[in-house]
Amino acid sequence: MAEKITPRDKDFSQWYQDVVLQARLADYSPVKGCMVIRPNGYSIWEQIHQDLDRRIKATGAKNAYFPLFIPESFLKKEAEHVEGFAPQCAVVTYAGAKDLEEKLVVRPTSETIINSMFAKWIQSYRDLPMMINQWANVVRWEMRTRLFLRTTEFLWQEGHTCHATAEEAEEEARKMLHVYTDFAEEVLAMPVVPGLKSESEKFAGALRTYCIEAMMQDKKALQAGTSHNLSTNFAQAFDTVFLDKDGQQKVVHQTSWGVSTRLIGGMIMTHSDDRGLVLPPRLASTHVAIVPILSNANKRNEVLAAARALAKAIQETSLHSQLPYQVGVLVDEDDTKQPGWKFHEYELIGVPIRIELGPRDLENGQVVMTRRDWARKESVALAGAPQKVVNELAAMQKDLLERARAFRDQNTFEIEDYADFRKRIEEPGGFFVAAWCQSKDCEAKVKEETKATIRCLPIGTDYRPIPAVGRCLACEGSGSLVRAIFARSY
Amino acid sequence: MAEKITPRDKDFSQWYQDVVLQARLADYSPVKGCMVIRPNGYSIWEQIHQDLDRRIKATGAKNAYFPLFIPESFLKKEAEHVEGFAPQCAVVTYAGAKDLEEKLVVRPTSETIINSMFAKWIQSYRDLPMMINQWANVVRWEMRTRLFLRTTEFLWQEGHTCHATAEEAEEEARKMLHVYTDFAEEVLAMPVVPGLKSESEKFAGALRTYCIEAMMQDKKALQAGTSHNLSTNFAQAFDTVFLDKDGQQKVVHQTSWGVSTRLIGGMIMTHSDDRGLVLPPRLASTHVAIVPILSNANKRNEVLAAARALAKAIQETSLHSQLPYQVGVLVDEDDTKQPGWKFHEYELIGVPIRIELGPRDLENGQVVMTRRDWARKESVALAGAPQKVVNELAAMQKDLLERARAFRDQNTFEIEDYADFRKRIEEPGGFFVAAWCQSKDCEAKVKEETKATIRCLPIGTDYRPIPAVGRCLACEGSGSLVRAIFARSY
Repeated sequence: MAEKITPRDKDFSQWYQDVVLQARLADYSPVKGCMVIRPNGYSIWEQIHQDLDRRIKATGAKNAYFPLFIPESFLKKEAEHVEGFAPQCAVVTYAGAKDLEEKLVVRPTSETIINSMFAKWIQSYRDLPMMINQWANVVRWEMRTRLFLRTTEFLWQEGHTCHATAEEAEEEARKMLHVYTDFAEEVLAMPVVPGLKSESEKFAGALRTYCIEAMMQDKKALQAGTSHNLSTNFAQAFDTVFLDKDGQQKVVHQTSWGVSTRLIGGMIMTHSDDRGLVLPPRLASTHVAIVPILSNANKRNEVLAAARALAKAIQETSLHSQLPYQVGVLVDEDDTKQPGWKFHEYELIGVPIRIELGPRDLENGQVVMTRRDWARKESVALAGAPQKVVNELAAMQKDLLERARAFRDQNTFEIEDYADFRKRIEEPGGFFVAAWCQSKDCEAKVKEETKATIRCLPIGTDYRPIPAVGRCLACEGSGSLVRAIFARSY
Repeated sequence: MAEKITPRDKDFSQWYQDVVLQARLADYSPVKGCMVIRPNGYSIWEQIHQDLDRRIKATGAKNAYFPLFIPESFLKKEAEHVEGFAPQCAVVTYAGAKDLEEKLVVRPTSETIINSMFAKWIQSYRDLPMMINQWANVVRWEMRTRLFLRTTEFLWQEGHTCHATAEEAEEEARKMLHVYTDFAEEVLAMPVVPGLKSESEKFAGALRTYCIEAMMQDKKALQAGTSHNLSTNFAQAFDTVFLDKDGQQKVVHQTSWGVSTRLIGGMIMTHSDDRGLVLPPRLASTHVAIVPILSNANKRNEVLAAARALAKAIQETSLHSQLPYQVGVLVDEDDTKQPGWKFHEYELIGVPIRIELGPRDLENGQVVMTRRDWARKESVALAGAPQKVVNELAAMQKDLLERARAFRDQNTFEIEDYADFRKRIEEPGGFFVAAWCQSKDCEAKVKEETKATIRCLPIGTDYRPIPAVGRCLACEGSGSLVRAIFARSY
């Protein structure tokens, strides 16, 4: 038997690490801050990649690939950008057995190198919009790392688009905020709050940053995706210009947007429990584990045959179902492991549905089914089991989202009084919605005194921060108030 | 109109560059030796990835992801390995605003970092075989680069497997040789010679290297994939051991195998012509371009409607066909471009089938169809066009392979006399099959005097080099002779 998982209420951080390591999702590597994504974790990333890639392509963006290395001088062309990223850069100074004339930064993000190509490719308004996406690894040197959530190297997708007008770029940044919101909720079953970052939290080089924020089970926030309106900041630095219909030379307006392997960490901290990983069915590759009970040698062949037939029937039923994926079914025929060991294993690694099938079940024409997020087992007629599986997979995807949303809503509070906030951010914690006067000083004061930051400014139908009444949480001033979500975060 | 492509017979190397740049498959980047893979090229890589990934998973290997960085000390643990790769390494010496205590090499290949994890994960024979594959970028500093064929950074997949016995490792290395052979021929329509590398050409750290070699249209060879039996070389260096059934501690036997974005270059140089890219249908995402002739304003709507209906009919017919992909159809409704411009464009970027549909065609119930590898156009009944498209896509895939195989066979020669060889390697060139005495000196002499190398030793059914009779091409000795293919190469 494997080691025990630390319960969430005892030590949430240790619980998270136990789940990631014991479910063999990722492991620590010998390179400081870099993780190894093991097959169980990588298959989740493959599901994310496949589904999100389809959504990104549906917006008109096309995939491409740009160099891993960025000449140091490129990063320096956009002043805020280099200031934001320089402390986190890994730098190649030596290559091909020689010192390099110009140092190469391992990409922390690719706005600069991609702009150097945009400037070459874009001549006229006919070349616009140009919409590119890249699936790649990036490196940001981190002092304190945590598997999936914050690692020196991570995998992500980064979209980069160029538009003829400021309006089109803004529309694109907003569109991607919706794509990420829908994706997080429909696929990860992770409810998110879309909003705007404050000036001090926005991307280094952006005009404004939209983001989606999720609440983890310890009530801390996780930034799960960002979409930036870059205005002409990078385009000016790289001279990314085009000849417009009116014969004028103009600078393009740009966006960039990305999500990363961090999503896997967010998904784990949203759904999993003290027994291990709970995986939304849309992220699973094995959806059903059938465990035949083979201890009775006389019945062994009969039970095995029934288990295999059931697996086939489930796959066929799923093909004609509304499920947006093909159901993966595994029949565990391993004789060297006990059923109890197998049940534990499938719970640990988060297989959504487990079915037990023994000689007595077979006599009674039934199977024993349990959903990973249930605390109970259910007897189900063998003949109806395939349809039941399909129904429960769809229901589980929905239930996980609803449960997580209810949890978040129960732990989101309107707050006005700062003393009260300081107490409640410690216990019980959560998202605190308060009025904020938009001053950096107030934001910094809250951060320093409570370790809570402004996760986002929720937006109205006009995509602008929502005006608030009353007084600023921090300074009690009453001017330029907007609603802000304060929380501790990953 | 775009620039003109240099004809192959004038300057093959310039022709290749013209095709890659003008078809917008890749571009030079501002980082020395690194390329940008543009959407037209990246979509080919996506097809390769998708198809090969399925084949790799079918062998039982699972995808994972390991760090980009390798501690310098790891590379040094396997003596031949570091000697082979050190001159090509890019090295991070500075990160997070500090000099690193231990330098980090940007992975040129991942045997060492992966072995450090294998050593941790593998305890017992029950953990074997362990079969891992990684899709990743790697960096090898190159002096002379060429888009796709040889670049400082490239994309690839690298498989790494551990086995309990030498026999199983050898079997795995051979199995992957077959997977690559089938993939190259079935998907890239690129015929390959499977064989063994000579000692001096094998992978740095391997016991033996199997490879597939293809002939380009200039009769030079391209190494298109390799599969290495690593024996226990890396496992010993990293102490990757297991407790066997017999209670003994043993070192695992390993393989590694990979193909890269170089395959795209090989595919281009196998099939393309003086008009641009010729793409095997299995690598296309747009298989059919329908160009409606819209110059007659009165007939415009009617022609457009017919073109759209045809597109739909082709897609539906393909769904019920034997084609292993869904046919992508594009209707080019762009009014700002002339049909002649469009024809040129679709030839350049290699859309396999082009259909013209004008008012007169519609009256006659027909369309004009051409296959990218045909020199002619064909009138086809409109009603039969969808089935014709499906048939021609299947035929084109087959014809490209057969044509390339015939070309290779016509340019492969048995040779005995060295003086004759020295003349014919210059003109006409090709693959020269000769006896070789297996001495490094003879191999080096041929290389120095003719720039031809031993591309591979063709293998018999026992996977060993095929014994030859007669005399060594270089030294005229008659001992330990095997058949070897000599050729100039990329």
